[in-house]
Amino acid sequence: MKRVHTNDLPANSGARVRLAGWVHHQRHLAHISFLLLRDAGGIAQVVLEGLAIRAMALELLPETVIEVVGTVTASSQAPGGIEIHDPEIHVLSATTSPPPFELRRPQLNAQLPQLLDHAAVSLRHPRVRGGLEISAASVLGFRSTLDSLGFTEIHTPKIVGAATESGANVFAIDYFGKPAYLAQSPQLYKQMMVGVFERVYETGPVFRAEPHDTVRHLAEYLSLDVELGFIEDHRDVEAVVRDVLEGMITAVATHAAPAIALLGLDLPVVPAEIPRVDFVEALLLVEEATGERRAGEPDLAPSDERWLSDWALKEHGSEFLFVEGYPMVKRPFYTHPMPSRPECSNSFDLLFRGLELVTGGQRLHRHADYLAVLDEETQIALSGYLEAFRHGMPPHGGFAIGLERWTARLVGARNIREVTAFPRDLNRLSP
Amino acid sequence: MKRVHTNDLPANSGARVRLAGWVHHQRHLAHISFLLLRDAGGIAQVVLEGLAIRAMALELLPETVIEVVGTVTASSQAPGGIEIHDPEIHVLSATTSPPPFELRRPQLNAQLPQLLDHAAVSLRHPRVRGGLEISAASVLGFRSTLDSLGFTEIHTPKIVGAATESGANVFAIDYFGKPAYLAQSPQLYKQMMVGVFERVYETGPVFRAEPHDTVRHLAEYLSLDVELGFIEDHRDVEAVVRDVLEGMITAVATHAAPAIALLGLDLPVVPAEIPRVDFVEALLLVEEATGERRAGEPDLAPSDERWLSDWALKEHGSEFLFVEGYPMVKRPFYTHPMPSRPECSNSFDLLFRGLELVTGGQRLHRHADYLAVLDEETQIALSGYLEAFRHGMPPHGGFAIGLERWTARLVGARNIREVTAFPRDLNRLSP
Repeated sequence: MKRVHTNDLPANSGARVRLAGWVHHQRHLAHISFLLLRDAGGIAQVVLEGLAIRAMALELLPETVIEVVGTVTASSQAPGGIEIHDPEIHVLSATTSPPPFELRRPQLNAQLPQLLDHAAVSLRHPRVRGGLEISAASVLGFRSTLDSLGFTEIHTPKIVGAATESGANVFAIDYFGKPAYLAQSPQLYKQMMVGVFERVYETGPVFRAEPHDTVRHLAEYLSLDVELGFIEDHRDVEAVVRDVLEGMITAVATHAAPAIALLGLDLPVVPAEIPRVDFVEALLLVEEATGERRAGEPDLAPSDERWLSDWALKEHGSEFLFVEGYPMVKRPFYTHPMPSRPECSNSFDLLFRGLELVTGGQRLHRHADYLAVLDEETQIALSGYLEAFRHGMPPHGGFAIGLERWTARLVGARNIREVTAFPRDLNRLSP
Repeated sequence: MKRVHTNDLPANSGARVRLAGWVHHQRHLAHISFLLLRDAGGIAQVVLEGLAIRAMALELLPETVIEVVGTVTASSQAPGGIEIHDPEIHVLSATTSPPPFELRRPQLNAQLPQLLDHAAVSLRHPRVRGGLEISAASVLGFRSTLDSLGFTEIHTPKIVGAATESGANVFAIDYFGKPAYLAQSPQLYKQMMVGVFERVYETGPVFRAEPHDTVRHLAEYLSLDVELGFIEDHRDVEAVVRDVLEGMITAVATHAAPAIALLGLDLPVVPAEIPRVDFVEALLLVEEATGERRAGEPDLAPSDERWLSDWALKEHGSEFLFVEGYPMVKRPFYTHPMPSRPECSNSFDLLFRGLELVTGGQRLHRHADYLAVLDEETQIALSGYLEAFRHGMPPHGGFAIGLERWTARLVGARNIREVTAFPRDLNRLSP
């Protein structure tokens, strides 16, 4: 008998089927018992009648893996309107101790560190699993949108010889006795690959030796990276950001619908044109509204980002806002200046629900421009990268989205670790 | 004027269009010149007439990035039957020195180390780029097949606290002053995630501190990993391998057709049922054919794999062959033994064109079985992993495909580095 999943039961009403999954919970009443079976599709109620099977079920600890053969029966009282009658139960994998917390509860009753310590169990909770389903669907939407826009997927090395993109916060490796580092981003490689494919993306881990423990930083996260050539300026990059976000949200709505329903989420709408504000103007807006001196600041404070997000929602009805033209002094060396105001940059951040979600912009593409901003030592360390510009690179730009940060915003998680299967930070290296 | 790509020219015959790309090559005859423009879509011939534009073009080094506005004109003599007349040329990005080798040649005229040193340029060669297009399409086919089979994508950490899967060949990291390691595979995590999603896959980098330099090993490569629960045994895993391979080949045929044509490749056909041979029987077959003593060997030698691949092609008309039942002694600790012959395993390798391409099998799923094979120290180091089995894991198994090795076999590359954008090995850490 071919196995069916719990979410396939409505299509099998009246039939005898084989289910398999985990014992999620049991309730034993005077003359009847109910066993909730959890599988990848959801949860089904199995009705146990008769002493023998009820006695057998009493022995099953939560998370025991069982197979159930039974009859699919419509029932107005059952959750989902359907339940399993006349079951035979067969244990596939016994357990000898109860889980560290009760997965049957609507919310896990434990602190985050405990949940993370016991990830093998806590990730099975439908709400926690739901966050990861939304992550998976987001990445699917990211890739399928870019595939349809003529982008090619690339895979670039995570072990690099030079820690030069930004000297701080890199992890050092012993590479066959030589010093090497974990890549903080695929930035330099994705630019080189624009010379090959014009439009590229990568979904891969990046590594930041963040020396402080915050709710929005991880030492390792998944970076959704995009780079494209033959652009006019950063506005062409922003247009791709917009389409990618829409594709991600559409994929979440399509492929993670049960998780959206379970978590009770409102998915954001991406406007046809995401509103924009110039960095200098943004500071003035905040200053005017709050009375706090902001003009001349080189960057937005977290409170500024929250204020601007609220403002975009009120003023433009958008949960997304591009802040453009950040001062060159705060952007990395490959940033292209704004032609009309060279102390500002053709770069942007995208704010989403009060937080910076995407960073991007136009890059330098002329070899001479790179020689002008890099010292001789760095030029030597980056010679393989600079060779791309020596031999013809088109105007180009790109952006990156941190997957965990995106998912955290989408589900309203206060801590990025709530939507990361196995987070890595200053204090956490396992499981 | 919206830019068109060179592969869109046939659809624009007679129109005035804007192209952009790299100066691939020029030929100057007495009264006429030809400029080949390369972009992501291919190569187009631009016909230059008149002294001014021919003189201007003479100044353009190969790999200069230009924009061309011209008229699409059918021409029986032009490559592809179409060329650009009456062009205006505008330089987007000038170059000051010729590339280290001539990209215009059908084959790059340089040794592999030189090509790898100058990856920023060599990857632009249509044949080299073609290999990476085939890689990208393969990964697309891998994911789309698994998506359609109900698998969920996962992202597991590459920084791990214990180097316990196999002690040797790990890279050590300084993790905030604590020792940590780069993951050799997502094996332990993908198993844990079977407890969450039942069926999972991951496409991510893995790291092996391979101390020897061979044509088929890299220190970092992309591993296509699959794990699925509620299996009967390893045969259910093999069925997924088969479908995934077919999906990858179909995606290559669909999405990398120009590369297939350029490289003149014959794509393999995946039989409805991939032939199988038992490990012990395989050794006997080789022994019988070659006269060399093989019985009792714990593993196949590379020459055995080549002989068996030839045999499968002759005997079964298949370029793929499963070798099943490897001795337990050669397989990792999580390997499930064969119930009828416990010294053998429910594991397999897939041979493709003479080389092991996939390794997989059924894993242990009972907590007690893990306690029996792991010493106490390892049990402590892997406690987060073992917790999954303590709390109910279904029978499960999985497999992994090395992307670069797959692509190398498909294109007939002798060295895996020929199809790796930025390979990492004992001696190479840049670019």
